[in-house]
Parts: sequence; C-alpha cells; structure tokens
Amino acid sequence: MIILVVNAGSSSLKYQLIDMSDESVIAKGNCDRIGIDGHINHKTADGRVLDEDCPFPTHTEAFMKLVECLTSGDAKVIDSMDAISAVGHRIVQGADVFDKSVLVTDEVIDKIDELRELAPVHNHAHALALRACKSVIPANVPQVVVFDTAFHQTMPPKAYMFGLPYDDYEKLHVRKYGFHGTSHRFVSKALAEAMGKDVKDLKIVSCHLGNGSSITAVDGGKSVDTSMGFTPLDGVVMGTRTGSVDPSAVTFVADKHGFTPSQMSEYMNKKSGFLGVSGVGSDNRDIQEAANNGNDKAQLVSDMLAYEIQKYIGAYAAAMNGLDAVLFTGGIGENSWEVREQVCQNMDFFGIKIDEALNRTIRGKLTKISTPDSKVEVWIVPTNEELLIARDTLELISK
Amino acid sequence: MIILVVNAGSSSLKYQLIDMSDESVIAKGNCDRIGIDGHINHKTADGRVLDEDCPFPTHTEAFMKLVECLTSGDAKVIDSMDAISAVGHRIVQGADVFDKSVLVTDEVIDKIDELRELAPVHNHAHALALRACKSVIPANVPQVVVFDTAFHQTMPPKAYMFGLPYDDYEKLHVRKYGFHGTSHRFVSKALAEAMGKDVKDLKIVSCHLGNGSSITAVDGGKSVDTSMGFTPLDGVVMGTRTGSVDPSAVTFVADKHGFTPSQMSEYMNKKSGFLGVSGVGSDNRDIQEAANNGNDKAQLVSDMLAYEIQKYIGAYAAAMNGLDAVLFTGGIGENSWEVREQVCQNMDFFGIKIDEALNRTIRGKLTKISTPDSKVEVWIVPTNEELLIARDTLELISK
Repeated sequence: MIILVVNAGSSSLKYQLIDMSDESVIAKGNCDRIGIDGHINHKTADGRVLDEDCPFPTHTEAFMKLVECLTSGDAKVIDSMDAISAVGHRIVQGADVFDKSVLVTDEVIDKIDELRELAPVHNHAHALALRACKSVIPANVPQVVVFDTAFHQTMPPKAYMFGLPYDDYEKLHVRKYGFHGTSHRFVSKALAEAMGKDVKDLKIVSCHLGNGSSITAVDGGKSVDTSMGFTPLDGVVMGTRTGSVDPSAVTFVADKHGFTPSQMSEYMNKKSGFLGVSGVGSDNRDIQEAANNGNDKAQLVSDMLAYEIQKYIGAYAAAMNGLDAVLFTGGIGENSWEVREQVCQNMDFFGIKIDEALNRTIRGKLTKISTPDSKVEVWIVPTNEELLIARDTLELISK
Repeated sequence: MIILVVNAGSSSLKYQLIDMSDESVIAKGNCDRIGIDGHINHKTADGRVLDEDCPFPTHTEAFMKLVECLTSGDAKVIDSMDAISAVGHRIVQGADVFDKSVLVTDEVIDKIDELRELAPVHNHAHALALRACKSVIPANVPQVVVFDTAFHQTMPPKAYMFGLPYDDYEKLHVRKYGFHGTSHRFVSKALAEAMGKDVKDLKIVSCHLGNGSSITAVDGGKSVDTSMGFTPLDGVVMGTRTGSVDPSAVTFVADKHGFTPSQMSEYMNKKSGFLGVSGVGSDNRDIQEAANNGNDKAQLVSDMLAYEIQKYIGAYAAAMNGLDAVLFTGGIGENSWEVREQVCQNMDFFGIKIDEALNRTIRGKLTKISTPDSKVEVWIVPTNEELLIARDTLELISK
C-alpha cells in the first residue's frame, strides 16, 4: 500500500509518497511558487533528484507535474497512479465541524472552503488543492483529509471559551480551536509506546516547539487544553508571532500605530516574537547563538520562551490534576538542548529532573532525558505529521 | 495620629479617616457625581450620617465639602484639619517610574499625570484630585501616593515582557505592570503573620477576586508574576472584562464588528466577562445563583473562572518552583464559598485539600480553610487597601 500525503499552501504543494508496508518514504518534494511562476524539487529515497522550473498557474498544473514526476522520467518511483492506494491531505482548520479525519467528498471540500473565514491563509488554498487533486488523480483513488484542529475537539468548553460576549462564539465562531493536533496526537501516542504504557493511563504535557509552537495537555490520550487558540497566534512566543498578549495591549498598539485590524494581525504574526523582541531573527538557533554571545534581547526572548513553557507545564498539571510526562518535539523541541535545559531547570517542585549531560548530546532521537529518580519522565519524541496523515488515511480506506 | 486616605476617580472621591493608634476607621464616605452635579455620603464610626446633594464642579469643591463635613456640623469627627497627620492617596498606575510609595511633590503629580496615557480613566483624575487636595488641605499636612502597580515592579523581564516588537516596550511602554498590588502586598503579609512565618520564607499564590480579579505569585514577599497586564483587562474572566483572549481574536472581532481600537477596548472591558458570556449580569452572586438554577451559560462562566484560577495556581507554582499557600481575598474571594470550593477541587496533585464544610460557613474572615493534612495551606484573608495606604503614609512621614 502506497499513500501520497499532501500539504498544500496558497503557493506550494508539499508531498511525500509513503510505503505503508514499512512506513518508509519513497519520494518527497515540493511544488512551489504556484500562481507566481513555478518550481519543483523532487527527491527519491535512492537519491535521485529533479529540480526544475515549470509553469504552475494553479494547483492543477502542480498536481499534473507531480503525477508526471512520480510515474515517468529519471526520478520515477511508480509505474502509474494505480500504484497509489489513497491520498491524504493535511488541513489546518476543521473548526468544530470536523472532530476526526474523513473521506473527501464535494461537500467536505465545500465545508473546508467555507471555514476559510477562520483560517484565511490556509483553508481556501486547501480547497483549491483538493479540487485540483480530484481533477488530476484518478477518481477511484480515495482521498482523506486530516485536520490540525481535530485532536483538540475533546477540549471542554471551560478550556476553549474566551470571556468575550457569547454571540461572538455563536455567530462568529470565536473560540479556541488549537493547532498542531496531528503532531500532538502522534507524539503522545509514540511516547506512551516508548514508556511501555497505555496512553489512556498517562497525563502528558506535549511541547511542540518550532517556528510555530504549541503546548497541549494530553490526558488519557485526549487533548484537554492547548496553548494555541482561535488561530495559531496565541500561546508561547514564537519565531515571528507574539504568543499571548494582554488584549488591551493589542488595541493600544493598533491605535498608536494607526493599524487596521488586519495590519495589527500581520504585525503580531510576522514582525513579533523572537524577531521583534530580539531584532536578531526568527530562528531559535540564531537566538541561542546571540544569547551565548551576550546579546541581552536574545537572552530575554529565550528566557521568555522557557518561562512561558514552564508556566504551561504547571497550568496543565493543574488542568489534568497530575503529570506523568513532559515531551519535546518539533524543530526546536527535538534539536535545541538549550531550550529543553532551560525549561527543565528549577522544576523539581513538579518532580522534573533531567540528565543535563545526556540532554546536551541528543538531537531528534526518541530519548528519555529525565533521570531515573525523576518523578515525571521527560522525553524527546520526534514528530512525523506526514506519517500520521498516511496512517489515518490507510485506516479510513481500510474500513 | 490620624490619616486621611483618598481614592479618587474621575467623578468620585472616596475617603476614610483612620486612627492609627488602633487602625480603626473614624469616618468614611464618598463624594460622587463630581463634574456632573454632586452628592456626598458620609458616615461616622458612631453611626452619624450625612447624605446630601451639593455642587461639585471639580474635585476642589469635593475636597472643600469633605473638610467641612469632617470638621463641622452633625457628622463632625475632628475639630480642625490640624488633627490630620497626613493624607494618603491611592494611585492606579505608577508604571516603571514608581516602585514604592512616595511623598507628594509637584514633580510627582506631574509624573502621575504624564502616565495618563497608560491609564486614561484613572491617572488624570488622580492628578486632578492631588492638585485639588493640595489647594484645600493645609500645606503643612504631608501627602503620600501609594501605587497599585508598585508591588509588581519586582517582576523579572521574562514575566513582564510581551512578544511584541521591542520598540513597543521602549517607546510606547507596553509591558505587564500588574494591578491590585496594594492588596496583594497587604494580604500576603497578613497571611504570613497568620501562619506564624516570615513572608520571606513563603511561596504564596494570592487570588484577589472581585469585580476586577488578579492572581499574583508572591515569592519571599515579592511579586514575581501577576495575571493582570498592561491594563487591568488581562488574566482571568471578570465581571465585565474578558480576561486573556487570543490576540488574533481581538483583531478578528474588531474587524467583524467594525470597531475602532477604543471601541474594541470598551467592548472587552465593559460588555464581556460574566456579563457577556452569561447574559445574566456582572455580579458573581447572580452568576452563582443562576448556575445553581440550571443556567448553562452562568455555569460555563463560573467553570471558566475556577478553571483559569486553577491554571494560574499551577503556572505560578512553576514560576516559583514551589507552593506553600494559596489565599483568597476581594469581594468574591472572601465571600464566595462556591468559587473557592470549585478552585480547590481536583487540585490534590499540588497538595491542596480544603475542609469543604468549613469553607461553606466562612465569609470575609481570616480563616485557614485547608485540612490539617493539606500540604499547601489555603486561607481566606480579608483585604484592606485603605489600611495599607494609611500604614505606608504613616511610615513615610515618620522617616
């Protein structure tokens, strides 16, 4: 069984071809600059590469090129699209309409498109890509959509409601949705397996830290709270995103700068966070290096990140009335020993104690970094959202 | 020694006359409708009352009436203003300019007025009242200002900085200031005394819950973090205030309703919280009653409040890497057994266990409500901001 996993943006189409017999990646790549000019970068597991410009006026041409590239030429990996059992698509916003992965129908695509209001950058692009995919891929190949938000649909109202007037929830659908759900679901399950326990018996704080970061309280395998909110802006400070800000500071700053709501949103999403506070850049590696070289503002934003994560760990231990394990995943979580070390320092009240020497040597490998006497286990758990999408897809088409 | 404590708003002037020999209140009252028409309500400790309309075009006339009322007529309590040793004023916003109470000078008044940008409703009114007071009260009576924010000036930058661009901090002074500092300082000290400990040895989460609510982490007698932020809007859900909201929801809702920043600010400050979510009202007593009668939205907002407080307790236990005591104060904290019970339920991971039967019987009295085997002590500690202002005033004039 071979599954094609697709992650479409407004101008890009990332994909992986996964052989589910051993969950290995056969080929992966990215069609980008869709609607601008067009470019494909395609790599096979055995090292063949296709990298060329080609016109992508819409997602349809990108899918056509992808099919051509998979089935013919120097970087071919399958004889025809008949070799593909299904396509799995990553969708950012499923709101409270989709609480699990589903098979794609025209109605499902329309519904995803309707939700564009809540995720303007992503959902319409997903709908375009889904329609393009249906027009290119043979009709007998089933397609599945997997939502970033679905895992968080188990949150109770006390966790997902804001203190805004109720009408804003009912009519404008303003509430906490949470994101990175596919990742949090994948890593919390992987952690339970690594610990030799049933996820149903564990209270986990899952820290997905990357360009975007979110912390989730996973109680018995279910998300009960998460730090990202209505959009992926809320929570801890990120590469270019503010994270949580006093709502009165939002209106004050917008007023002072003369920003419209959408300009203010852009400002908080693109000009803030690591970049805005430090002036150094949006990449955690640059922040850590600058901090080590004595840059005060880089040190400040690094301290802010670690401190905010510590507070979420404490808050979610309260939300779950317990804490068995903390896990780190995502680009920063898997690779930055500095961030992990800073988060786990001075947390012995919670029973958190890591082996600092071991922690400093590990990057991107499933590893327990807590000491044997730490009451709470601390792990690095590499995430693999594409694989989870492929697994969900396989499960749905096998029903 | 008799101290006059003044709490001035834009149209009101609340006061207490306190005899510092036994810290008893000799008289108290309120000059309100200043700038509208004018009205005074004045009560003495021995039960005499003056309640009448009188013109208050400005704070100056209100102070003149107050002096008249204290020193003559049926509700007279002193022979002349010479009996008063000093006046202590409550000031909402001292920003990072004032980290403690100070004697009033013209420069101090000007500085308070300059900070009006950060607290438009309060600081300019304070400055008006200070100038009026100086013009009415004999020049030899020293005056002191006590700031709501000063106690929180010990917060480290990682706690008070937002993830907005650094310029917004440097040029616009956007950061977390925290409020209710006078109350948090008063009750944390009172709690340490009640526990027979030095406040320096305690890690306390202080929950001031009233129309406005704030939670503070008091570590060794110092505020290290607090839930209110740039203004008193942030933190937990309040009577008419949202508390924390995803910043992207702020811009989204403002955009949908076509609100200017100041309209959005008004909306989040006056139409939200208990009132906005439940539709029942802004008073916690009405919310609890409606919830008990099966009103789902009242139950929701009650659940939100308790849950958010639980998360702050957890977060601040992380911030302090420890937790010795939780205290409840303020109108709701002192009087609502329902809120206290809900907050303390399912918190045994933190070692919090209260005597529910005892808790249900106590209102507004210094009482330990945790069980003898609770690792964390839980107390009700009545606040008295006026008394702390009087104490600060006395201390400053005695130097």
